[in-house]
Formats: sequence, structure tokens, C-alpha cells
Amino acid sequence: MVAPLKVGIAGLGTVGAEVIRLIESQARVLSGRSGRGIRVVAVTARSKAKKRGVDLRGVEWVKDPLTLATHPGIDCFVELMGGSGDPALSAVEAALKAGKSVVTANKALLARHGLKLAKAAENHGGALNFEAAVGAAIPVIKTLREGLAATGINRVYGILNGTCNYILTRMEQEGLSFAECLKDAQRLGYAEANPSFDVDGHDTAQKLAILASLAFGTKVAQSAVYVEGISSIAPEDLRAADDLGYRLKLLGVAVRTAKGIEQRVHPTMVPKSSSIAQVMGVTNAVTIDGEGIPPITLVGPGAGGAATASAVVADIADVARGIRAKPFGRPVAQLRDTKKAPMERHEGGYYIRLLARDFPGTAAAIATRLAEQKISIESIVQRHPNNGAAPANGKASPVPVILITYATHEDAVRRALAAVQKDKVISGRPQVIRIEKN
Amino acid sequence: MVAPLKVGIAGLGTVGAEVIRLIESQARVLSGRSGRGIRVVAVTARSKAKKRGVDLRGVEWVKDPLTLATHPGIDCFVELMGGSGDPALSAVEAALKAGKSVVTANKALLARHGLKLAKAAENHGGALNFEAAVGAAIPVIKTLREGLAATGINRVYGILNGTCNYILTRMEQEGLSFAECLKDAQRLGYAEANPSFDVDGHDTAQKLAILASLAFGTKVAQSAVYVEGISSIAPEDLRAADDLGYRLKLLGVAVRTAKGIEQRVHPTMVPKSSSIAQVMGVTNAVTIDGEGIPPITLVGPGAGGAATASAVVADIADVARGIRAKPFGRPVAQLRDTKKAPMERHEGGYYIRLLARDFPGTAAAIATRLAEQKISIESIVQRHPNNGAAPANGKASPVPVILITYATHEDAVRRALAAVQKDKVISGRPQVIRIEKN
Repeated sequence: MVAPLKVGIAGLGTVGAEVIRLIESQARVLSGRSGRGIRVVAVTARSKAKKRGVDLRGVEWVKDPLTLATHPGIDCFVELMGGSGDPALSAVEAALKAGKSVVTANKALLARHGLKLAKAAENHGGALNFEAAVGAAIPVIKTLREGLAATGINRVYGILNGTCNYILTRMEQEGLSFAECLKDAQRLGYAEANPSFDVDGHDTAQKLAILASLAFGTKVAQSAVYVEGISSIAPEDLRAADDLGYRLKLLGVAVRTAKGIEQRVHPTMVPKSSSIAQVMGVTNAVTIDGEGIPPITLVGPGAGGAATASAVVADIADVARGIRAKPFGRPVAQLRDTKKAPMERHEGGYYIRLLARDFPGTAAAIATRLAEQKISIESIVQRHPNNGAAPANGKASPVPVILITYATHEDAVRRALAAVQKDKVISGRPQVIRIEKN
Repeated sequence: MVAPLKVGIAGLGTVGAEVIRLIESQARVLSGRSGRGIRVVAVTARSKAKKRGVDLRGVEWVKDPLTLATHPGIDCFVELMGGSGDPALSAVEAALKAGKSVVTANKALLARHGLKLAKAAENHGGALNFEAAVGAAIPVIKTLREGLAATGINRVYGILNGTCNYILTRMEQEGLSFAECLKDAQRLGYAEANPSFDVDGHDTAQKLAILASLAFGTKVAQSAVYVEGISSIAPEDLRAADDLGYRLKLLGVAVRTAKGIEQRVHPTMVPKSSSIAQVMGVTNAVTIDGEGIPPITLVGPGAGGAATASAVVADIADVARGIRAKPFGRPVAQLRDTKKAPMERHEGGYYIRLLARDFPGTAAAIATRLAEQKISIESIVQRHPNNGAAPANGKASPVPVILITYATHEDAVRRALAAVQKDKVISGRPQVIRIEKN
């Protein structure tokens, strides 16, 4: 019988406590699957006194993460503190350099320092596993790293942030404003007091950077991701999406193009019939387009203590079984620099909502500006606020006009809309939302 | 540098040829991921002369599968011949007993002889990988075996047969009969000339037996699966499902109950809002309910040369990387006998469609028989064929009545309907379809 894998855990919040419980309650299954036992031998956390509902008798309490990371009594360091800086960074790096394996759920750390950490893992022979960092228990890392090992990937995209999807789902289903839904999400604990990290798309961007590296064999680089959040989305955009056969989702999209790898996070119109369009509430989903095969979509909880702990313990079990995958699927030396495809060269369809001033020649002016940029219109919807009747006060009020374009370039759209604004035929700023076809 | 993994392939149909192409075209990525090269060194197939569009120069042609399986020049035997008997069975067994690893897409072989083969793999140290046997490139085997290693599974269910889902989708969307859709599926190559294996549910049953073993740690046993096919489904069932908020799918369901493990394949009403209900056409999907975590659903192509080959080559890459998972997730000695939960004790909601003779007292008679068995009705729909008007010929014609029950026992439903038939208040046989809640 092989000696059990000795685990040290840094961070004992909801996830950490649940990891300890799972390792305890599933001991027999885990040792059957791994061929050896798994034992939590040491832990560290900010407060020793805090009640956590787990039995820590017989487990050594270590004073700080760095000491735990290099503790001679552990084989595997589990980092559940979060944050892209210290103490997580230095502890994970120290553990890897000491030849230990590391399991972490820390997307920020990986998006920012993943390459350096992968190199340390490779040089010193430990594993660096992070299934829980993206989509919690949805096995998307394993699928990209191992399951599709032989398949070239053309695109990977998904709903990677439950907070945003919850807000957009409620806006769609109840016709509420962004602000109202955000407040509710905060009340229910789905959004932080400072919601910017989620609603401005940064959480999605970190996760996307990790997926893109695995999918395309590029160096993980959060800075290569173009980011737009959902705070400008209005209920009328969701209504228009519905009318036109789309749903509105905050997507992270990484796609191979002739100009390089596009990595982008933005509100997106997706066809109602797509798998991703069906994903409601806090649920996450990732779709992978492999070369020559129809898309594969993985759907499930993207957060939550039990789901995250499930992925963490599966990663520990892989360490116990002796699996040493390359952290980003390929040896670090084979990972290429990301050739960042510039957003202005993005090609795709666009949803454009304008508030047109209602006088003769407005429609012609807009159409002319689009035509000048060779943008073809797939559909146009003009909703007259007075149902076509002349306004009561005799004064023309602005009319919402919604355009769906055929595939065109982002810079063409930007130029056309700048010209339309200069023409003074619209009120306010146009709303522009990209369309992603399945 | 470790020596390359030497692969022998038996069976050179669409999948076999595609496997050779993938190994060739993805050589660099595969060796990066696996830490060693992968080389096809020997093959066998029924006809040597057949054109396959792949370059077999430098590859040894072996006269028969058994010789290839034990060929001293190969490390990994890839079985793509199919069939639960010989030559597949004896060749796979011989390869494993010779200490080689085996990769196969053969669900029939695994559903029937999986236990014996897993034992041979375990005793002789080889891997036995079969991701492609269920859901082609959808990584469901890896997810159950590794990704959810630490999570108790309560239920696994899915659409595992593309032919049936194609037929049911067309019946639903176009109001066509089963026979018409089957004919079309045959014309398009989605169904065999003898469609029984697919439409009677046996293909689904073999795949379900494999998933159930992985999910619950039981000995794989196709004979433990209750099977009903889709040939009795009528367009009016699909219309009624739609009216009542359901879709009709052929599901394989394996679920842990107080009475044992239920394994069943049957037409099933699923709520329209469920992930599985969105899966249309030949696409497959599997949902896994883990303890304490929301469901995880994996969606993708369940068949096709490229998708199947993708999974086969990923399995080969795992062999190259030295991964030796227990074939059914646990050591064979830990796999328990399936305690088969009897179908008559199945608990759930039911859809019942009756053709009631239209005379006073019929409804009362049916209601009484259901009440006698303590079956509560959730909803009832009676569609009068003449829109409520008296029939032109003055003769009462049978009236379709559709009932949805609350959760009850299968034997109660059977007894109630037997009594209703004895009462002679209905024409023909009642249609009974189980409901699966998400």
C-alpha cells in the first residue's frame, strides 16, 4: 500500500471547510479511485478561533501560508485564500519550488502569474491543478487539458460569471432595470457590495484568459482580454433581443482568427436556439468548438462552496493518483505569445440601438452612413413611441431604431456611428452589442 | 526523451482512419501534452485493399485482431471493430492479459463484459479507456471517473441516442408520425436499415449501464436496465407534452433510490425549462446530479467519425501520459453487485393518455379507479374531437383524456389502468409515459 497523500490547506472559509469534510466523508471512495489515502495533516487560516464546523483535532495548525507551503510534512499544498498577490502568490510559488503539488481555486492568481507558476511546477515536478478556478465543478479545465487533447480548438466561449447572468436573466424575465436587479443580487448575496469586479467583466476576463491559454496553447495573459461590462444594458435591449430571436448574455469569447487570438468579454446577443442561450440565473456554461466536430457545451454551477470543493478534491485525487498534467496543457516552452487580435478588426454581426430624431431624412441619413462603411442591414425595427400617431404636443420626439447588421468590421461600425452622431440625427449615444453566432 | 507510445489499431472504418489522421496531424501537440510521441505502428482490418484516404506506408499490416492485440511491438491496442463478441472480446482480453493498454469505443463489449475486462486491466497493469463508448467526444466518462471523483452521485441521466432524439425532435416540430420520421432518419443515414437496436432503446441501455457503474460503483450489468423504446409514441403525445410544459425525450436514467439503483430507458416527459429539454436533433446530453451541488449537464455530438476519433485519441494520449485510472472508477473488488430496484416500485409522476368512451359516468369511473390506488391528479386535459358539439352521426366517439399524476408508484398506475380497462370505459390501450423532474 502506498503512503497516503499528505495535504496542507491554506484558507478555511466555506470552501476550505467543505474540502476537509469531503476528504473525510469520501475517504473510502477516494482511496479506491486514487490507489492511496488522502489525509489533511496541516492547515492555516487568518483566525484559529473561528468556528468552522469541522473537526481539526489531529491536524497541525501552522502559523502562516508560507510556512505551510514548504512544510516538510506535506505533499500537496491547497491554496484557498484568493487574491493575485501575496500571501497566495509567494506561498504557491514556494510550494512548487519545494517540489510539492499545488491545488488552487484562485483564478486571479492564475490569470496574472499562471505562466511563472506553470514553469515552477514543470521545473520541480509537482502538479498545478486549478479546475475550481473556472466554472467550479464544471469540468472545463480537464476537458480542455485532457479530454480534447487531440482536437484543435477554434473557439471557446461561455457564461463565466453567475452574478451577471443572474442580473440579465431577471432583467429579461421581469423587465427590470440593471440597477434594480443589481440591488436584488446584492441582497441575495449573489453580488458583492462593490460589484465592479463582476458586473464590469473582470471576473469573466480572468477566467477567459485561463481557458484561452488551455485552448490555444498561448501564454496566459489577462491583459490580452478586451473587457466591457453589463451596466449600460437597458430593459429595451433585452426586449429587442427577444423580438429578434436572441438572448443577451455576458460572454467571454476566445476565438482563433486570421489576425490572431481574439479574447473578449462583452454583452452578447446569442441565438435563442443555442445551448448557451438556455442558461439562466447563476448557472455557468462553456461551449467548445473543436475542429471538425459539433460544439460541446458544459453547463453547471459556477460557484458555491460545495461545487468548488468538489473540484478541489477531484484535483487533489488526481495528484494522489500521480497525474502530472502540464498546467496549461502543453510544456511552458511550447506556449506561444498571445498574438492579440485588435478589437477594431473584430468581424461579426452587430445590434445597434439608436434614438433617432423624428424628422424627414433621418432614416436616409443613418442608412447612408452605414452604406458608406459597406455595412449591410439584416433587419431594422422602428418602434414609434406613439404607435405612429402624431405626438399630442405637435413636437416630434425621438424614435428608437434597432438595427441588426450582417457580419462587418468593428471599425466600420465605429466610423459609421461617429458619422451618424456628427450628423445630429440621433439623441444620446448609440447602444452597440455584438452578436455571436453558434 | 521517453520512447513513443506504439499503437496498434484494429478496425479501419471512418473512426479508425480518422484516428490515424489525428495522431499524424496533431503529433506536436500530442507529444507536448503527453511528454512522449504517439505512433501508429500496426493495423488490421477486414479488407487490406479498401481505399481509406490515409497513408499506411511504414505501418505493419497484421493478419488478424488477436495477433495484433498481443503483438510485441505495440504498447496500446485500439479496438474499433465493435460487437460484444469475438473478435473484439478475445482481442481486448488478450491485449490486457499481455499487459497492454486498451482504448475502445465499443459500448456493447463494455456493457456485457466490462467487469471481466476491468479485472484483466487491473491485474496486468494496463489502462482500459472508453470515453468514445458513451457520447463520443462529450467527456462524460472522464467527468464521472475523475472530475467528480469526490462527489457522491445521486442520479445520472441523459439523451444517449441521436437517432431517437432526431426522430422525436422531428415528430415534435413537424407533427409527423414515428414511422415517417424513422423513414427520413434512415434516408439521411441517422438510422440503420434494422432500426430496432436504436429505437427500441438497447443502444441507450448499453451506454446507461456503463454510466451507472461509474456513477454508483456497481458492477456494470446491461441486464439490470429496464428498457422501453419510442415506437409507440404518437404525435398527440408530443402535442400534449408541449401543452403541459414538457418535452418528450428517450432518456436513460440511473438513480439511487431507497430500494436500490434504478436503471431505466424509456420515453420521458422532461420540463421544458430543463437543460436536457433543449437538446434537439442528433445531439446527446448527460446530466449528473452530485450530492449537494446543482446539476452538471454535458451536451454535444454523440456520434460521428471526427467526434468519436477525438475521444479515442484523447484516451490514447492519457495512456501515453501514464494515466492508469480504474476503468470503472474504483478497484474491481470494490464494485458492488447492482441491487436492481424493481420497476414496479418506481416512484414518479406519470402522463397517461386514454381514449375514453363518451358516455355519462366515464370520467367518474376513471377517477374512482385512480383514487382507489391513491393516485392524485395534477392536471387533466380532455380534448373533445368535435369541439364539444354533438357528433354529426349522433354516435358518441371516444374522447382523448390526458392525465398528469403527482408522484405515485408504478404498480399503483398499472393496477388502476388495469381496472379502468376492465371497466370497459376506454378504447384501446392507455399510453403511459414517465415524468422526470429536474
